[in-house]
Amino acid sequence: MAACIFCKIVKGEIPSFKLFESDKVLAFLDIQPLSRGHALVIPKHHGVKLTDIPDDSLVDILSVLKKIAVATGAENYNVLQNNGRLAHQEVDHVHFHLIPKPNPAEGLGIGWPAQKMDMDELKKLYESLKAKM
Amino acid sequence: MAACIFCKIVKGEIPSFKLFESDKVLAFLDIQPLSRGHALVIPKHHGVKLTDIPDDSLVDILSVLKKIAVATGAENYNVLQNNGRLAHQEVDHVHFHLIPKPNPAEGLGIGWPAQKMDMDELKKLYESLKAKM
Repeated sequence: MAACIFCKIVKGEIPSFKLFESDKVLAFLDIQPLSRGHALVIPKHHGVKLTDIPDDSLVDILSVLKKIAVATGAENYNVLQNNGRLAHQEVDHVHFHLIPKPNPAEGLGIGWPAQKMDMDELKKLYESLKAKM
Repeated sequence: MAACIFCKIVKGEIPSFKLFESDKVLAFLDIQPLSRGHALVIPKHHGVKLTDIPDDSLVDILSVLKKIAVATGAENYNVLQNNGRLAHQEVDHVHFHLIPKPNPAEGLGIGWPAQKMDMDELKKLYESLKAKM
């Protein structure tokens, strides 16, 4: 994807603070961090959403996030991957955020509008999803 | 871990709406969903934080999240994994949320307090992290 900023970083056309690189995965610092140590891990395979990425490009992503989490020494941290504008995705190439949460003011802010869900409704949803998997 | 609610779900001591199961991974519906289709994917290996989970228990997690995302049909969705109380972790067994975002009111709420970071500071941080990886 010629216009994709993360594909350009993969190709080295845009510089980045590379933390890790393999044939399928690249990790680098977010240059607009939410907290010190905020990093991104991406599959080199271009795809907009998680559902667009082949499984073999996903297998190593979490172990790389783990490596970075260890390097930051963060005790509290979030792993976040957003799909779609409504879900806060800003760059259209799958990326996983590793965001240390050193204190309430820095790092990811989380809103948790838990719904009331009755068990019958949940059971119906379950049957419907299970049939599609 | 005898007291861990997710270990009890793995063992079948507590019922769950199981969407997927393999020797290393279990997926089930969150019974306090943020939106319709909110599901959890966990390694069967007990560990509190991502850094506590062996790599071989992490390799299939994202492909299972992908399967569930496909089944929900969601166009917008977040993948979230919280580590530590400050980062909103509520159950002390690693779990990945798949949370559809059908509209602004439902699903995950995200706060994004981006910091100003000068390039010199980022470069110093980079050198320090890179040395630890």
